[in-house]
Amino acid sequence: MRVLIAGMDGYLGWSLAQYLTARGHEVGGVDVFYRRRWVAEMGSHSAIPIADMSTRLQTFKEKWGEKPYFRVGDLTNWDFVKEVFEEFRPEAIVHFGECPSAPYSMMDVHHATWVQHNNIIGTLNILYAMRDITPNAHLVKLGTMGEYGTPNIDIPEGFFEIEFRGRKDRLPFPRQAGSWYHWSKVHDSNNIMFACQIWGLRSTDIMQGVVYGTRIDEMGDDERLFTRLDFDQAFGTAINRFCCQAVIGEPLTPYGKGHQKRGFLPLRDSMQCLTLAIENPPEAGEYRVFNQFEETYSIFELAEKVKKVANELGLETEIIPLENPRKEAEEHYYNPDHQHLLDLGYQPTHDMEAELRVMLTDLMRYKDRIEAVKDVLIPDIRWDGTRRKSRFLKVMAK
Amino acid sequence: MRVLIAGMDGYLGWSLAQYLTARGHEVGGVDVFYRRRWVAEMGSHSAIPIADMSTRLQTFKEKWGEKPYFRVGDLTNWDFVKEVFEEFRPEAIVHFGECPSAPYSMMDVHHATWVQHNNIIGTLNILYAMRDITPNAHLVKLGTMGEYGTPNIDIPEGFFEIEFRGRKDRLPFPRQAGSWYHWSKVHDSNNIMFACQIWGLRSTDIMQGVVYGTRIDEMGDDERLFTRLDFDQAFGTAINRFCCQAVIGEPLTPYGKGHQKRGFLPLRDSMQCLTLAIENPPEAGEYRVFNQFEETYSIFELAEKVKKVANELGLETEIIPLENPRKEAEEHYYNPDHQHLLDLGYQPTHDMEAELRVMLTDLMRYKDRIEAVKDVLIPDIRWDGTRRKSRFLKVMAK
Repeated sequence: MRVLIAGMDGYLGWSLAQYLTARGHEVGGVDVFYRRRWVAEMGSHSAIPIADMSTRLQTFKEKWGEKPYFRVGDLTNWDFVKEVFEEFRPEAIVHFGECPSAPYSMMDVHHATWVQHNNIIGTLNILYAMRDITPNAHLVKLGTMGEYGTPNIDIPEGFFEIEFRGRKDRLPFPRQAGSWYHWSKVHDSNNIMFACQIWGLRSTDIMQGVVYGTRIDEMGDDERLFTRLDFDQAFGTAINRFCCQAVIGEPLTPYGKGHQKRGFLPLRDSMQCLTLAIENPPEAGEYRVFNQFEETYSIFELAEKVKKVANELGLETEIIPLENPRKEAEEHYYNPDHQHLLDLGYQPTHDMEAELRVMLTDLMRYKDRIEAVKDVLIPDIRWDGTRRKSRFLKVMAK
Repeated sequence: MRVLIAGMDGYLGWSLAQYLTARGHEVGGVDVFYRRRWVAEMGSHSAIPIADMSTRLQTFKEKWGEKPYFRVGDLTNWDFVKEVFEEFRPEAIVHFGECPSAPYSMMDVHHATWVQHNNIIGTLNILYAMRDITPNAHLVKLGTMGEYGTPNIDIPEGFFEIEFRGRKDRLPFPRQAGSWYHWSKVHDSNNIMFACQIWGLRSTDIMQGVVYGTRIDEMGDDERLFTRLDFDQAFGTAINRFCCQAVIGEPLTPYGKGHQKRGFLPLRDSMQCLTLAIENPPEAGEYRVFNQFEETYSIFELAEKVKKVANELGLETEIIPLENPRKEAEEHYYNPDHQHLLDLGYQPTHDMEAELRVMLTDLMRYKDRIEAVKDVLIPDIRWDGTRRKSRFLKVMAK
């Protein structure tokens, strides 16, 4: 299948380009390299050094025989999006081309408005390009489990049947996101649902859990094919930060009580799930939602897991919670459905510790790179709009 | 109370400025005069001639003794919004400063992205200005009943208590809007709800029905104080279009079956409700939703009412449905709650026919203005993205 990856230079985009190519799909990509710029703006860099796109494409050619279609450009530019669709005529579009950071969006009014503008307008342009140029194509859009927030009831996959005052309907499940970024994804989800309804487009909206891992088999040992791994407060997830902290001998720092529960899945599983979605498109006019994760853990359980594996690898670590810079529920019910991908044949890895072992071993090679900017591991972007480094909670309690 | 009206040059904004001033509130306003530009873009003009803002402000001074604070500027410009908040320091903000047209937003990709950008970014800027400059102020934001769409269950006011798989929660009611414009209002609602939650702001989100009427008592007979009345396919509501059609002897044209039900309220009632909301602000951190309308009618019933009153005034009319240019349910359940405003003391007028009589009588004076651009009454903006004038359905059936 001809698959356009928007955001091909990113963590998931570059991995998926290889995963799909290895399975015989024809991959094309666009990127404007914002992720590299955002992470630099946070004073950080990828823990794993990554090649620039021209090297990446050249390596791709050496390994797979052909350079993929690739264009540098901004999805908020309609003329660019239109040109790409006319040139590449994708059968599927995987939309990673959005700013994915909650803290980045919470920094100030300029970042808040920029993130919402960037994500919403880019997605609208893709929807119009699909309508006008490739109306049968399938949009696989990366959402996040964070769109749902933490309601006190089970979280279905996008829609639920409810009874209210004696009448029934099937309705979109209410979203309660926790940052301007997360809300931008909800806005996108709503816009996409509407486009499917009025124009007969087809889309799979992936509510993805937190993805972790440094590699997939398809990368082999060629460093030029490795994908990025961020650990700064804005673009590094808790699991990435914990692994990097373990590697440089700093304490692992859950935010607040650490009882916040989230869904997680390894990078290889994310690739497997996205490919299942791509290879099994919905009907015309169908907007379907997949909750994409393997298992749920609390952030504290996660820290415990990283600590255990790190110790096995000879890394001394401790866990010290930090003041929570976010405004979020730290104690809550959490039971999201995740059946749709299993129905399509998803085989979960079910071995977080093995994956963490690979991750930590990979990261130990780049200890100096992490050490060099380790200040970025401690957050200072607060949900009330101020900037102040979070304090260690255990130390405060003493 | 010191009330900032964003969009003070518009139909509701200019009316509310007078209504509030007459009740002793200190009114200020901002506007960038987009509404005049959009209507001109549709090849139309207000049926009732309106003065320019400098004349309006001068007349205001003659009648009320003082010119209100007024600044020309764009809400998507943060520096402008910040300056206005610093200068005027509002205690309440009534946010009419958005593009309010479904067809306008459905014209093409440029209008779709422009409307969503304009509405979302303007509202985000207001939220940040409130947080930073007037954190105790009350945001009264104009939403629309159209945010809810037409679910097969009752529509509560913003939130509902539900039971799902044996557990309970109070959740935002799912929205199912019908155009990019309506979705932009949903996106705003979600953003505002989040800002109240994390920053302790207070807001009343008004899900307003269709407002009709040419005047409120406070305008008296001074034409310079009259407010606009649009009748083009994009900025004129069904009721405005029917009245203008009756006045020029053209058939009244419901779209499709005309069984679409909506909530309606006269302009004087809208003013009364908005003032009740302003004078009874929510608690800090509270985000409340009011469904603001008086009675529900189908579009066909509405046409019948206009026809009846027009006949009484000696205007010959008939009703001929048009092909529906929109994609919407033409037969549906519709039972929205509207208790919150009644609890605050709202006294509904309950006399649509009297209001229609005033409206038609006012409009008869401007028959020539309507006649001059009557082509704008027949829609050609279609939800599938094409432009084609809707055909008369009765004629086709013969």
